[in-house]
Amino acid sequence: MLARDAEGSEDRLGRAAVDFPVAVVLPAGGSGERMGLPTPKQFCTILNRPLISYTIQAFERLSWIGTVVVVVAKENHDLMLNIVQKFNHTKVKVVHGGTTRHRSIFNGLQAFSNTTDSLTPKPKVVIIHDAVRPFVEEDLLLKITLAAKEQGASGTIRPLVSTVIATTSEGYLDHSLERAKYRASEMPQGFLYDIIFQAYQRCSEFDFEFGTECLHLALQYCSTNAKLIEGPPTLWKVTYKRDLAAAEAIIKETLSMSACIIAGSEAEAVELAKTLQKNLNMIETDVISCAKESNTEYLSKTQNFIYISMSGSNFSWVLEMVKCFKDLGHARLYPVVIVWVQLNMTKQSVDSQKTDELTAFMGLASEVIQGNVLLYGIEIDHSKVIFLMRYLYIC
Amino acid sequence: MLARDAEGSEDRLGRAAVDFPVAVVLPAGGSGERMGLPTPKQFCTILNRPLISYTIQAFERLSWIGTVVVVVAKENHDLMLNIVQKFNHTKVKVVHGGTTRHRSIFNGLQAFSNTTDSLTPKPKVVIIHDAVRPFVEEDLLLKITLAAKEQGASGTIRPLVSTVIATTSEGYLDHSLERAKYRASEMPQGFLYDIIFQAYQRCSEFDFEFGTECLHLALQYCSTNAKLIEGPPTLWKVTYKRDLAAAEAIIKETLSMSACIIAGSEAEAVELAKTLQKNLNMIETDVISCAKESNTEYLSKTQNFIYISMSGSNFSWVLEMVKCFKDLGHARLYPVVIVWVQLNMTKQSVDSQKTDELTAFMGLASEVIQGNVLLYGIEIDHSKVIFLMRYLYIC
Repeated sequence: MLARDAEGSEDRLGRAAVDFPVAVVLPAGGSGERMGLPTPKQFCTILNRPLISYTIQAFERLSWIGTVVVVVAKENHDLMLNIVQKFNHTKVKVVHGGTTRHRSIFNGLQAFSNTTDSLTPKPKVVIIHDAVRPFVEEDLLLKITLAAKEQGASGTIRPLVSTVIATTSEGYLDHSLERAKYRASEMPQGFLYDIIFQAYQRCSEFDFEFGTECLHLALQYCSTNAKLIEGPPTLWKVTYKRDLAAAEAIIKETLSMSACIIAGSEAEAVELAKTLQKNLNMIETDVISCAKESNTEYLSKTQNFIYISMSGSNFSWVLEMVKCFKDLGHARLYPVVIVWVQLNMTKQSVDSQKTDELTAFMGLASEVIQGNVLLYGIEIDHSKVIFLMRYLYIC
Repeated sequence: MLARDAEGSEDRLGRAAVDFPVAVVLPAGGSGERMGLPTPKQFCTILNRPLISYTIQAFERLSWIGTVVVVVAKENHDLMLNIVQKFNHTKVKVVHGGTTRHRSIFNGLQAFSNTTDSLTPKPKVVIIHDAVRPFVEEDLLLKITLAAKEQGASGTIRPLVSTVIATTSEGYLDHSLERAKYRASEMPQGFLYDIIFQAYQRCSEFDFEFGTECLHLALQYCSTNAKLIEGPPTLWKVTYKRDLAAAEAIIKETLSMSACIIAGSEAEAVELAKTLQKNLNMIETDVISCAKESNTEYLSKTQNFIYISMSGSNFSWVLEMVKCFKDLGHARLYPVVIVWVQLNMTKQSVDSQKTDELTAFMGLASEVIQGNVLLYGIEIDHSKVIFLMRYLYIC
């Protein structure tokens, strides 16, 4: 779901099937009134990153997708440019939105009609999506793109969650619709660029002001019936504040599906690492030795690291890892979590050396968090796992 | 939203307006397939409590609402009885469900038709709700109940989130509906008991098997047009796994709206308590002194306690509070959080006495968690707030 690299193997399918230019228009002009928040929802952050950056990344990771035109309100132009820079988005072009959703999308489409701009060549197929639907998979994008190429238009649908009813003007039930005959129209939608651009050029002021459905414009003004494709539930629109918590839960769950366990050189550490791997059978784990010369390949495979050791005072490995993450840009999009497990096999009580160590560790944790690395410490006592100490830095 | 006591003042309005018997039918027979979880969603826990218990509580807290008939699949009968007992639900009657939603609701309604059962007298108005919509406020329940009494039927509606489209049998767009004319039909719904019971007695096997909309039955079989009332977005149905995270976020946000700060006798503790209260201006806080003889009234006002002290080794106040919470049943429905802030004004380093204290504190934390009390410790160092130490117990 959160595929990380444009060069990943899953991308091959799309690259083979799509031999024509594809671009994206992402209207992001909404004000977020429904959120009850001062920040428009597309700019609300999840794990320190704005929602819209996740959505952009969902397209940018795919090599067969070209420019992503992001349409924002004029007042958010600088904010958007900062996001593009901070999260190193390379395919984005920012344009200004209109007063309604349809006007914003039209502005986005017009960016491609300027033939002198080499950054936005006219695409064969354009995908229109929502900035606040961050979880969109390649599989669906591919289906939408190919159906749009073939039929002129394509849209994502979902079953209706609630019964839809028609109301009388006095606020009474008129009739209820037979659920099976209807679907909810969702995003993404795909169009031959010439068709949707023509539909927008032909549509009325009333459409621009009150319309919401691009498929309707293609049907009404270009007689193109969209092919409909069923999408997964994760496509839902982040609309309310609670949806931010839901989106965060999905991202965290995906990020927790793998971990790398690094064992110190002591026999006990190696033993514990193996036991841990066995017990973490729900997730994908690698066990590597800290002694190994180059672990770079493992470092880029996951966001979660567990380092098990008996000698605590030497933090050089953390510093080394953090440097490595920085070089790889590995903590840029998602936080890296390092849990440092220290085995204390003696009955020795906490002494002042230990206290200094603790202070140094917490200092380090507060330093690396600036680079999006979350460092936690666990001490396992002589009498076996007794308690977990979690160090959090508060400024 | 999470009103705690049936005797609360907000209840007065309803008690004055509703002078007729009202009961509830809560179909909870769903299997939770869409969740991708082995547990049906209504039994999934949020903060150690099953979702359905929150929903039951939303009705039980209101003195003008009588019996809550919960309809469960036969295999979940014992599970449901355990929940009723554990969370001390006093108005619940558990009945067995049918194979479809409509059959289950009919089974629930039939519980009231047995005139010999004094626990389920026939109500004037019956409210039908979903077990997986835990956030329903008295205000809406009151409107639904009064409209049902007056019109025979009433339903909750929400604006459509997505455009609704009609599809051709080949999977193409046929037409899109004009969004403004339609609404999503949500729960709760209210009915005169005689009307909805008659509608179910008259309806067809086809309705029982494929129907989902109670308002439709009242209209078709009793010619009753429901009055429609717009509900808040928090009414949404917990359908997917991500919705559990969203529901938890809502509950936590509501629980964090108040706190009680308890200051130790030292001048520094009192000073910090006052500063903290000023800085926590987003939430409702009380500051009380630990020296006060009886603080029981404050203990029942919130779930969050911050105890500020300079002398750490004496835990008797925690034990006393925990005993008090137990007597009040205060941690039964929602966890109680106690944050113990210890001011360390000396430059003295950690010594063995301190270590013993720490061990004792963590032992205590692991003990009180059994009673749904979460105990955390923060040490604030001589050099002002430097770091937060959070003790978590792992078994």
